[in-house]
Amino acid sequence: MSSIRFPDQKTLDFVAVGRLCIDLNANEINRPMEDTVTFTKYVGGSPANICIGMARLGMQTGFIGKVADDQMGRFIVRYLEQNGIDTGNVVTDDTGAVTGLAFTEIKSPSDCSILMYRDNVADLLLKASEVKEEIVAGTKLLLISGTALAQSPSREAVFQSLEYAKRHGAVIAFDLDYRPYTWTSEEETAAYYNLAAEKCDILIGTREEFDMMERFEDNPGHDDNKTASKWFDYSAQIVIIKHGKEGSIAYAKDGSSHRAKSFKANVVKTFGAGDSYAAGFLYGLMQQWPIAKSMEYGSAAAAIVVSSHSCSDAMPTAEQVNDFIEKSNAASPN
Amino acid sequence: MSSIRFPDQKTLDFVAVGRLCIDLNANEINRPMEDTVTFTKYVGGSPANICIGMARLGMQTGFIGKVADDQMGRFIVRYLEQNGIDTGNVVTDDTGAVTGLAFTEIKSPSDCSILMYRDNVADLLLKASEVKEEIVAGTKLLLISGTALAQSPSREAVFQSLEYAKRHGAVIAFDLDYRPYTWTSEEETAAYYNLAAEKCDILIGTREEFDMMERFEDNPGHDDNKTASKWFDYSAQIVIIKHGKEGSIAYAKDGSSHRAKSFKANVVKTFGAGDSYAAGFLYGLMQQWPIAKSMEYGSAAAAIVVSSHSCSDAMPTAEQVNDFIEKSNAASPN
Amino acid sequence: MSSIRFPDQKTLDFVAVGRLCIDLNANEINRPMEDTVTFTKYVGGSPANICIGMARLGMQTGFIGKVADDQMGRFIVRYLEQNGIDTGNVVTDDTGAVTGLAFTEIKSPSDCSILMYRDNVADLLLKASEVKEEIVAGTKLLLISGTALAQSPSREAVFQSLEYAKRHGAVIAFDLDYRPYTWTSEEETAAYYNLAAEKCDILIGTREEFDMMERFEDNPGHDDNKTASKWFDYSAQIVIIKHGKEGSIAYAKDGSSHRAKSFKANVVKTFGAGDSYAAGFLYGLMQQWPIAKSMEYGSAAAAIVVSSHSCSDAMPTAEQVNDFIEKSNAASPN
Amino acid sequence: MSSIRFPDQKTLDFVAVGRLCIDLNANEINRPMEDTVTFTKYVGGSPANICIGMARLGMQTGFIGKVADDQMGRFIVRYLEQNGIDTGNVVTDDTGAVTGLAFTEIKSPSDCSILMYRDNVADLLLKASEVKEEIVAGTKLLLISGTALAQSPSREAVFQSLEYAKRHGAVIAFDLDYRPYTWTSEEETAAYYNLAAEKCDILIGTREEFDMMERFEDNPGHDDNKTASKWFDYSAQIVIIKHGKEGSIAYAKDGSSHRAKSFKANVVKTFGAGDSYAAGFLYGLMQQWPIAKSMEYGSAAAAIVVSSHSCSDAMPTAEQVNDFIEKSNAASPN
Repeated sequence: MSSIRFPDQKTLDFVAVGRLCIDLNANEINRPMEDTVTFTKYVGGSPANICIGMARLGMQTGFIGKVADDQMGRFIVRYLEQNGIDTGNVVTDDTGAVTGLAFTEIKSPSDCSILMYRDNVADLLLKASEVKEEIVAGTKLLLISGTALAQSPSREAVFQSLEYAKRHGAVIAFDLDYRPYTWTSEEETAAYYNLAAEKCDILIGTREEFDMMERFEDNPGHDDNKTASKWFDYSAQIVIIKHGKEGSIAYAKDGSSHRAKSFKANVVKTFGAGDSYAAGFLYGLMQQWPIAKSMEYGSAAAAIVVSSHSCSDAMPTAEQVNDFIEKSNAASPN
Repeated sequence: MSSIRFPDQKTLDFVAVGRLCIDLNANEINRPMEDTVTFTKYVGGSPANICIGMARLGMQTGFIGKVADDQMGRFIVRYLEQNGIDTGNVVTDDTGAVTGLAFTEIKSPSDCSILMYRDNVADLLLKASEVKEEIVAGTKLLLISGTALAQSPSREAVFQSLEYAKRHGAVIAFDLDYRPYTWTSEEETAAYYNLAAEKCDILIGTREEFDMMERFEDNPGHDDNKTASKWFDYSAQIVIIKHGKEGSIAYAKDGSSHRAKSFKANVVKTFGAGDSYAAGFLYGLMQQWPIAKSMEYGSAAAAIVVSSHSCSDAMPTAEQVNDFIEKSNAASPN
Repeated sequence: MSSIRFPDQKTLDFVAVGRLCIDLNANEINRPMEDTVTFTKYVGGSPANICIGMARLGMQTGFIGKVADDQMGRFIVRYLEQNGIDTGNVVTDDTGAVTGLAFTEIKSPSDCSILMYRDNVADLLLKASEVKEEIVAGTKLLLISGTALAQSPSREAVFQSLEYAKRHGAVIAFDLDYRPYTWTSEEETAAYYNLAAEKCDILIGTREEFDMMERFEDNPGHDDNKTASKWFDYSAQIVIIKHGKEGSIAYAKDGSSHRAKSFKANVVKTFGAGDSYAAGFLYGLMQQWPIAKSMEYGSAAAAIVVSSHSCSDAMPTAEQVNDFIEKSNAASPN
Repeated sequence: MSSIRFPDQKTLDFVAVGRLCIDLNANEINRPMEDTVTFTKYVGGSPANICIGMARLGMQTGFIGKVADDQMGRFIVRYLEQNGIDTGNVVTDDTGAVTGLAFTEIKSPSDCSILMYRDNVADLLLKASEVKEEIVAGTKLLLISGTALAQSPSREAVFQSLEYAKRHGAVIAFDLDYRPYTWTSEEETAAYYNLAAEKCDILIGTREEFDMMERFEDNPGHDDNKTASKWFDYSAQIVIIKHGKEGSIAYAKDGSSHRAKSFKANVVKTFGAGDSYAAGFLYGLMQQWPIAKSMEYGSAAAAIVVSSHSCSDAMPTAEQVNDFIEKSNAASPN
């Protein structure tokens, strides 16, 4: 069965490229943001969260990105370093760009929204020439994230990272992470998502994200098999399509498909579920676990994060995930 | 002596036009922002602060401005209304603009800085056609603020407000409030500051702000008298030039000049000093007090605000200012 | 009566500030441009045409403007110099801007249109700091043109020119010349036209142009007297309002109004009529002729230009205008 | 050997996507443009020229592009139709964009330059959704041109065209045609040129253009074989690298390389040489001629065009090329 082979003899297990930003999470929750008076600051951004998740699970990790030359940027770099993430390729902006912000509003565990500040942000200013070939050459797994494709020059930096990963044999995972507000049009989005996806080994996204990528194709029934098959004709080996509450399905190139068990959680908010799932799943694949077991591990990590106030700071260690799975299985054996 | 005559029979005492934004003040102070974890949210923006100050002092007030169609914008409008400010001319943006933010960093009482978010902000999108002639027609005093001149269409909205104020006989005060980050060049700044200042009765600014306005003029000695005289040839009746620690001087059209007494304060931070001073001073003028007494009142209001954590929310009532002056005079009689 | 007093003891009679561009006039006329194969190149732009007109009439002239660093820009400077115009304040752009183009289409003498190229043009990049105070100080009459107000930094350069003209006592004429395509909105247009017009002694424009300036005012009947009166409250001494085929009316501050005699012409195209009229009229005022005689002189100059293929290159000498008037009067004495 | 197989049973032989613009060629040549007074108008743009060339040679052709809604745009569409080119996918812009212009300056046969107008041009506004799948599905050969990759949304329209061509089996030729002025940076250029080139069967460019594409690669000796080999790992079958006066070399996937014979010409100007060469060469390939014979045909077409005043309008018929080759061979048999 279809586990992915990762290259040997690399210094790093995992490198992510893309968004580094700040989450400002409402301290007074279960109410509209108008009634919130204080906020707590965390490092955020989907690839940052996943990278922190991988580091917590014990992986050797690094990040490729750009931060503002301000207090927020310095806070981010310091936090990554405190988590043992190699920041040698985190560049500091010199144009006066700001750090992206996400104010979170938690009206109820199931009614969460985000107020984004994404104008003139440093993370989208990473240049192709600032991506260091040696960090990509030295990793087993490279993760790219869709938001970094939204604008030049960050978009070219992602394509350059893909080029280096191909050149040096890294496995490539693509977390689609489509956020409409930084894109000019859906046509533009589809164009670059498809060009990037052609080069990736693992694709993870929602059904809606795959629909967006298929806007010039013929899949009126939103058929997962048709979606996955297309990518197996390029580089893909695993395509995960998330169907919200109905769960995720992993399609493998050998024709098999896999569903994950889900866990009960005491949900505080939904933010961070996808990022912790991705970290847990990719961690499992790197342990050469079967796809289904890797998915279960991702689900457990997600259950832990949605029970906490933050995303990045709540990413669990392997010990925490193992404990969680053990206790859950003890509670509801099936 | 030179008190200003305000028109009778107007519904409102005071209307301000311009910036409405959010201050996010560090809760953990006396340290760099990198070490700050939580922030408290307040309404901010120089003209907003002055307007709130005037309302607290008992004036009938209104505001002309634009807010984002989001939780921050709704918070601002609600706060203004809670302070009794007429928000009938506070327009809601429909373009997806955001609310300007100011993260404050208080390293020490004398070492304060601000991290600004001013890209794509709603307040700079106010249009000339959105300014209601009747609100300007119905006020005794109109306050404009320099930051609103930084970009179109807000710039034209300010000039339109000036046109209405002239047409209906309102006294006009101009708080220079020059913030370089929203301007393209100093030449552009000087051009529009001068065009606006020609039409104003009261000018309030720092020596550096007046220097910026004189970049195409011949005042190498930075002579206050020369600066003030120029504006008396246009519409000005009072020109206040602030010299930082050395205090402010008010020049009047009759040739007199005035200095304010200052007060001792237990300074937490310097933010808000200028705005509370302006509110207190303009309040005094509207009571037909002499210039020097009005300046003293402004200084007392400033002393109260710099002793508090916020700007807007700390604006004192007349009772608080009177008490403060009384106690200060009792403590150090001279 | 009501002639304008011009200052004595100046080096130059006339200086214009603003647009310098290229006209590409269809050689094959009386057909749509689709059927035109060859074009002839001329210097163009309303203030350039007026300045060339004044130079041809014998005035000492100069120009304040900016040209592209290319073959078109060099052609313009050379042509101005060949006409005896002082180009000491014609600056060369260093940003890669282009020269504005106007392709003219002459379907019939009364059906003419222009295809404009106004993106990234050098003339709108003139900066306030590039305007030389001494050239404005040394002229009797300064002409500004509305198109130069359309964008920064050219807009600020015009206001700086006005400031210098006021400082040194030059008479100021404002040729409204409103071209919608370079402006963002009519509100923005009205704002800066009004701010500029407040400072000018002579205003020349169409009824529609004055309507645009009155968009926030109350003149539903488009009453010329109301329009003119407003400006007499500021600096204006003469306001010319053009009513197309019904002719122009000049309103003077003393309450008088004046109409010009018009001349029969063998019309080739309508382009250039306004510019040649302005040159002839301003020339007349500078001779201390009565307003009506100055208007007649302008009409004669216009009649000559509309009978020719070009605008700038067809501007007549005083001898040509005098001959034309003499012959016209001989032909139809009244 | 190594001829390319084109699909059968298609309606069209050749479709080009990209730039449609206007050349304004100086009528008075062998002098600087400052001394030029009249210009003649032609359809221009590299893919337009190649498409016209193919049509003249007898191919069934079509064009995918966008024109301004003005006289220039209508002139272009009419000219294409007069040449028998299918304009069913030439879209008219509705945003007020202009037609790109190229003023040519011919100082001497070997000293030619171009003054470009490329701001806000219609051709770069073609959208992915405006590319008709059926026109790409119905052609044997699709030509893309590098300038159309310079900006969004035209860039995405090219990638969409490539996607359709892959889907329906069209052979794809890429004329690199790199023009720095429409690009933001060389890094951005390299990124999209490479992504496009990966999908193409035939690449045609200068050594300098291939160097630009290799800016993140290791080819310090500018080795043609190394350059060509890279592309054979993707889709390429033929890579033509032009070395200016030293001639062009065609590298084929089978390892062979080919040089073209060149022809003596009475050179008026160098413009159009590359486009006519491309048309002749691609025509040859479509006749299933050997590579060397196809190159010779291209050289002959180029020799004819450089002897004429225009580019597009001078594109020869097959009869003219055959005659030219015959006469040349007769004159200098070798």
